[in-house]
Amino acid sequence: MNELKPKRGVAIIGIGITKFGEHWNLGLKELAVQAGTKAVEDAGISGEDIQLVVGGNMSSGLFTGQEHEAGLLADYLGLNPIPAIRTEGACSSGGLAMRVGCLAVASGMYNFVAVGGVEKMTDVYGPQATTALSGAMDYETEAYFGATFPGIYALIARRHMHEYGTTRKQLSLIAVKNHRNALHNPYAQYRKKITIGDVEKSMMVADPLRLLDCSPITDGAATVILAPADLARKYTDTPIYVRASAQASDTLSLFSRRSITTLDATVYAAKEAYRQARLSPKDIDFAEVHDCFTIAEICAYEDLGFTEKGKGGKLIEEGETEMGGKIPVNASGGLKAKGHPVGATGIAQIVEIVKQLKGEAEKRQVKNAELGLAHNVGGSGATATVHILSRDR
Amino acid sequence: MNELKPKRGVAIIGIGITKFGEHWNLGLKELAVQAGTKAVEDAGISGEDIQLVVGGNMSSGLFTGQEHEAGLLADYLGLNPIPAIRTEGACSSGGLAMRVGCLAVASGMYNFVAVGGVEKMTDVYGPQATTALSGAMDYETEAYFGATFPGIYALIARRHMHEYGTTRKQLSLIAVKNHRNALHNPYAQYRKKITIGDVEKSMMVADPLRLLDCSPITDGAATVILAPADLARKYTDTPIYVRASAQASDTLSLFSRRSITTLDATVYAAKEAYRQARLSPKDIDFAEVHDCFTIAEICAYEDLGFTEKGKGGKLIEEGETEMGGKIPVNASGGLKAKGHPVGATGIAQIVEIVKQLKGEAEKRQVKNAELGLAHNVGGSGATATVHILSRDR
Repeated sequence: MNELKPKRGVAIIGIGITKFGEHWNLGLKELAVQAGTKAVEDAGISGEDIQLVVGGNMSSGLFTGQEHEAGLLADYLGLNPIPAIRTEGACSSGGLAMRVGCLAVASGMYNFVAVGGVEKMTDVYGPQATTALSGAMDYETEAYFGATFPGIYALIARRHMHEYGTTRKQLSLIAVKNHRNALHNPYAQYRKKITIGDVEKSMMVADPLRLLDCSPITDGAATVILAPADLARKYTDTPIYVRASAQASDTLSLFSRRSITTLDATVYAAKEAYRQARLSPKDIDFAEVHDCFTIAEICAYEDLGFTEKGKGGKLIEEGETEMGGKIPVNASGGLKAKGHPVGATGIAQIVEIVKQLKGEAEKRQVKNAELGLAHNVGGSGATATVHILSRDR
Repeated sequence: MNELKPKRGVAIIGIGITKFGEHWNLGLKELAVQAGTKAVEDAGISGEDIQLVVGGNMSSGLFTGQEHEAGLLADYLGLNPIPAIRTEGACSSGGLAMRVGCLAVASGMYNFVAVGGVEKMTDVYGPQATTALSGAMDYETEAYFGATFPGIYALIARRHMHEYGTTRKQLSLIAVKNHRNALHNPYAQYRKKITIGDVEKSMMVADPLRLLDCSPITDGAATVILAPADLARKYTDTPIYVRASAQASDTLSLFSRRSITTLDATVYAAKEAYRQARLSPKDIDFAEVHDCFTIAEICAYEDLGFTEKGKGGKLIEEGETEMGGKIPVNASGGLKAKGHPVGATGIAQIVEIVKQLKGEAEKRQVKNAELGLAHNVGGSGATATVHILSRDR
């Protein structure tokens, strides 16, 4: 990876998020406008101060027939003629938007950048959501032959169980934890406590993954307002600083990888993020990780360096990633229970970390939250982004 | 617009492009790899030097079922684990990729950035190309009611004729010029001379626009390699410098605009580009403009400031935008004759301007080409990008 440094530091001065769930009466633009206006208000600026919009969205084309999503956002947010750029990297589209926003501020070309993510996945006009999501795979080598994401992650889960002795119970504990955390998140899609028994009795989707191992189909949007670190204190007493913005790639096809139980894109992105922030995994106080399936959270523990390879299952079983554990993970409820509007997820993770760092997470507040990490994955790991945020510059 | 300046200058050190046309035996990845490897070779670097890929693509999801296009590029170019970001802004997706590439280099975070654009529009699995392209409109207010792009631009043409006396012949002259220019472009889709009579006898598509007023459906890809201006001379004796990288937005819906004959996004983006480069329209020696329909080129003349509002038709009629005229436009053949693989178009324009500035455009060489402008439009003008390139910093 490169040894280069940003020319300017970047801070977050405002956040906004919609309720995640099934919004049968809200479309792409209504969701994005709701989150966007909240963020602008939170930043204490006016829409006219915004100089660039970056909008993460995976598949509004396949879901709703609407491409040109960032232009749509600028339009309905009343921000014309300011420029708007859509980023897409499957379920990491939000993480990519955050990265482009950071590049834009660091470049010196823009001071105030609204970075949003939005996805409208229910009430779609086209193919079923699972078919659209298959676009994140290598279409010619995977989707064309009928692979779906639950199937792909089931392969990862089965192999992880085989190689490292990861258990059914450990998978279930991820879902139980994330549902428990979401009880205290008013924006979460599912605020319903579940037990290990509930997970293990839920419908089989792709062996060994059951319904309650899977994140849901969700509508939602989230926005953050970025500003140069040097200017941030003019707008808020509690700016949150971006200490690292990193990304890496891997093959789209699972079969092309050196190991299907390691998401190399996460490994490389994390390494680069720790380098940028001059930190190591043990410095991180809490994290929002990409638990699109329960097995994905276990892999993330390992690939982000929170534990050794193969010991992710043990980490959850020992309670280390629970609230009050060594490193609470997915205090928000994660993709599993907060919901997973794919293009919005990366920004929603940033929103949660900002709330935690500002001490505004109410009943799900992580204690002594000084350094938070956001981990967003596209597809089965062809793209991963890692951001590290902090109250200190 | 902002008065900010990039922290580092940006230069282009390599270019690559595929033949534009119907590639029945090449898919998204083959096209992108062909253009990408050519550009890397042209830059005299190796793939390992690349630190970031930015890939413009409008609608691979709707066209081919494949999202996650930039990840796919990095994968098949053998560039993992380097990060890859897809940008989308309808037919300006390439222009947006160029902008993100410039931000990335200017930010100090990346030195060598491969910026590509690709679209696979023939042999598609999903809806017809025209339906997919409608995703660039406001779906709920335009596409849903049956509007298509020829229809939208026909409204613009009809109103332009009504307001400014623009004639059928003037529209035809655009097509005739661009086809004549494409005769000398080996990468062009149509290398066939046409006459005013041919245009006016061609099939009516959306009155007043006939078949030969319309750009075609095209497969193709293009790539440029960016580097910091300060390092560029280490890699090439003839770096081309990015003097301006600008963008603006307008409403997606035509009916929401103050005037349907002016593309305000172009007006604002051009103004910002001239400000960045400290130039005025009369300083520009030649341009590649977004002639998705003949009327669009006439509007571009006016909106970019090459002539007064309403006098675009006169400009072509007086031969000023012909080769050898005051400001040759679309020496490449433009979208009309070179072809219009929507996500690749913005980068293909940059490739042409680099060739012209380096004096490598052979029989279509513009004389005294010192300053070139690229103008890329998304939809009916909700997004526009303007880049100004030069042999001098």
